[in-house]
Amino acid sequence: MGDADLYRRLDAMFFPRAVAVIGASEIPGKWGFMIITAIMSGGFQGSLYPVNPKKETIMGIKAYPTVAAIPETVDLAVITIPAAHVPQALQDCIAKGIPSVVLISSGFRETGAEGAVLEAEVTRIATAGGLTYIGPNTMGIISTHGHLTAIGVPIFPNPGALAIISQSGNLGMQIIQWAIHRGMGVGFYAGTGNEAQLKARDLLAYFGTRPEVKAVALYLEGVDNGRAFMETARAVTRTKPVVALKTGRSATGSKAAQSHSGSMAGSYATYSAMFKQAGIIQVSTPSELLNVSAALTHLPIPRSNRVGIMSLGGGWGVITADECETRGLKLPTLSPAIIEDLNRRIPPYWNRTNPIDLVGEASPELHLHTLDLLAHWDEVDAVIVLGVVGRLAITEAFITSQEKILGRVFSRELKLSVIKDQIQVENRFISEIARQQRETGKPILAVSLSEGGQTLNDTDYGTAMCLSSPEEAVTIIAYMAGYQAYLNSLITP
Amino acid sequence: MGDADLYRRLDAMFFPRAVAVIGASEIPGKWGFMIITAIMSGGFQGSLYPVNPKKETIMGIKAYPTVAAIPETVDLAVITIPAAHVPQALQDCIAKGIPSVVLISSGFRETGAEGAVLEAEVTRIATAGGLTYIGPNTMGIISTHGHLTAIGVPIFPNPGALAIISQSGNLGMQIIQWAIHRGMGVGFYAGTGNEAQLKARDLLAYFGTRPEVKAVALYLEGVDNGRAFMETARAVTRTKPVVALKTGRSATGSKAAQSHSGSMAGSYATYSAMFKQAGIIQVSTPSELLNVSAALTHLPIPRSNRVGIMSLGGGWGVITADECETRGLKLPTLSPAIIEDLNRRIPPYWNRTNPIDLVGEASPELHLHTLDLLAHWDEVDAVIVLGVVGRLAITEAFITSQEKILGRVFSRELKLSVIKDQIQVENRFISEIARQQRETGKPILAVSLSEGGQTLNDTDYGTAMCLSSPEEAVTIIAYMAGYQAYLNSLITP
Repeated sequence: MGDADLYRRLDAMFFPRAVAVIGASEIPGKWGFMIITAIMSGGFQGSLYPVNPKKETIMGIKAYPTVAAIPETVDLAVITIPAAHVPQALQDCIAKGIPSVVLISSGFRETGAEGAVLEAEVTRIATAGGLTYIGPNTMGIISTHGHLTAIGVPIFPNPGALAIISQSGNLGMQIIQWAIHRGMGVGFYAGTGNEAQLKARDLLAYFGTRPEVKAVALYLEGVDNGRAFMETARAVTRTKPVVALKTGRSATGSKAAQSHSGSMAGSYATYSAMFKQAGIIQVSTPSELLNVSAALTHLPIPRSNRVGIMSLGGGWGVITADECETRGLKLPTLSPAIIEDLNRRIPPYWNRTNPIDLVGEASPELHLHTLDLLAHWDEVDAVIVLGVVGRLAITEAFITSQEKILGRVFSRELKLSVIKDQIQVENRFISEIARQQRETGKPILAVSLSEGGQTLNDTDYGTAMCLSSPEEAVTIIAYMAGYQAYLNSLITP
Repeated sequence: MGDADLYRRLDAMFFPRAVAVIGASEIPGKWGFMIITAIMSGGFQGSLYPVNPKKETIMGIKAYPTVAAIPETVDLAVITIPAAHVPQALQDCIAKGIPSVVLISSGFRETGAEGAVLEAEVTRIATAGGLTYIGPNTMGIISTHGHLTAIGVPIFPNPGALAIISQSGNLGMQIIQWAIHRGMGVGFYAGTGNEAQLKARDLLAYFGTRPEVKAVALYLEGVDNGRAFMETARAVTRTKPVVALKTGRSATGSKAAQSHSGSMAGSYATYSAMFKQAGIIQVSTPSELLNVSAALTHLPIPRSNRVGIMSLGGGWGVITADECETRGLKLPTLSPAIIEDLNRRIPPYWNRTNPIDLVGEASPELHLHTLDLLAHWDEVDAVIVLGVVGRLAITEAFITSQEKILGRVFSRELKLSVIKDQIQVENRFISEIARQQRETGKPILAVSLSEGGQTLNDTDYGTAMCLSSPEEAVTIIAYMAGYQAYLNSLITP
């Protein structure tokens, strides 16, 4: 099968006009119920055909006894029936000319030798019939751009530029939930299940071709063909960054991964070497996977590894400088021009180094000016701002504390106006981060004073990203700079 | 000065009956305003005496022109006036017999040579007059057990068993804010400022003697007398765990720290060696500092480094196993008794290894039973539960998604009863974690499905801690096990 054929079928899977759910049910808790309600709740805009021989309607929609009875061409069938009936269902799909299937059903290779035989038969039928299927034993797929949520958990991310490929359904769902929590969009999600026919690398190649996708995030337990995976990855990373979380670092983890997805886990070091050669950004934790994915889909990539830091107080700057050095980032010595400029604006005992410590000076104009100085300083490729964002919580606490003692200190009007001012100051700063980021092409990361500050803030000038700790900001820049170094190595003779 | 004298003065500082604020003001934004309103809002229960020669009253309280005019014995003076007037103010305090001072004022050593001379004079006056002072250039102190919030930021943690000593005011405030966000109590906070007289080690020794304190968290940039610090720390860690975040790992960070607090940063490796020898738990990030502090004040310490893991799905178990191995924790092979027991309860293709993968089985009874099996398994010292807690968010999303399509699927009553059930199931599980934890003396950490799940949950049986990622749970256990190993090394010949 050529790539064009595969991509055509994957287009049918991720952008279907008509979907059949084989095993659709009205019994809450059943997969056939969860899938059809998810598709309906997810705002699917095409035709939906429940297939269930025992029912006239499912969830108020006319049901069909078989796919053959459906009056229209069907692009995608989602199958939730017991494993033993899957071969026949696939035959029916092929007879109907359905090009793509999401095979939710479990009871295949993951259950032992008998299941493995059944799985091989299913794959043989699909391949012979020119049908592409994902699974079995998958929680499903999401395509926000195709308005399709064919997944066993009711989870509805907003559209976005990230494609996620996961070899673990529960981890994949977790990642999407976290993304929603952070205000981060997801373009596509594919839980690959047992990967009997369609492999993670096929999806990686496909998402590499989709214009909606700016970056791909992978959760990998193992791949069956390292060389093929690497060739695909190497091609994709030339134009789109790919971030991977690979498990099986430890002997135990590796054993657990094997037992979970049945894949050959291989040596972790081998994978790391492969990722490096293919330009894949390898992260170590789910949080890093999300942070880096968010940055890659919203921020410019730094040209190199030099960082400028501004901080409202000393301690944070120190911690951030430490993290930079640990992660291979450079903090250039502050230029005489910047020192001279700031000498005119802040108390004479300021530190005159990078990180710049604004020694608690609270003037919004000074914050904006320092941001501007750092962003336009041609010796840095990225900027970290510590503690300017997130002051609102402190202002509110301050006012509340005043109210406890003497109502007269702040009138309700004054209080509202103080809070409004603070919101305006903060919004202006965030907007300015986005503007400077766009103007200079350098990523500018803010670390918020308030926890849970990990957000993506849309402004007129693009997105400003806030993290909840300095180490997260540093890690993101380090990974992005590493990817850029890889891209540079491709063009340098 | 003997330790007994010092501790008596520190008792006066952290448990004062009468407090004078020298420089008290009604002008919002001034330190003298912020301090007095913080003390008032913080619910101080003793006598409060604003000292300001130009005012009859401050914030509705009678003001005094000098401390000499105060009609009562004063235990603590908080000083916010300009540096140049501090020597006279200290003389006044000594004349009045005030044993302790929080010296907020800045403009000393951190501003240069002239400030350093002034600081030395202030210290000479204090020491000669038998007065103990913290600072200068500190944001202040908090003593929830003494009902005192003498700090420049309106931040009011609940009482707790943690004492925090910070060489950075802004980082200290940040740590307390995070603690509040997580529902974590703070017993004492001391921002040490320039440490002209009172050193971090003095406070460490003092908090070591306080019965309210179960653990001490340190943010250190550097200490001036490594030997003295280590002797103190070694004595304290015999009975109370001490966690430290030391900056200056990198050359840049070290330089920044030096410029910030003026202390000799020393080599990071030297500090690490010193911490190890003194039994101090050294963490690398502010988040770790908080997580480990929360665990040390609420959970039992594991006897050794063997961990049992249960998970609702494979992926998370794999990631957690990896992290355990990376951090030196052991995952014992599942015992035949546990395997046999679970064989009777879950589908035959379950993995039969540690981490136990419950392959998506949703029965609350099975979750409770597996928790019980792991907690009572004598080959493990700690338990991690992945994904049972935090399902409520998913249940709610599920119901919401149903409502979008067909109102009739769930009536309002049914919906409320489903959510109520889920809350009950979850509360029962959390309560059971706390019960098993108390019964077995093993820490049991839950990793929640929903982000922001980092909480301390009070139950009838004690506190159950939920983290928002597997790596956090693993890191906490690894640090605690390391401390226990240190304690064991003291008694093993």
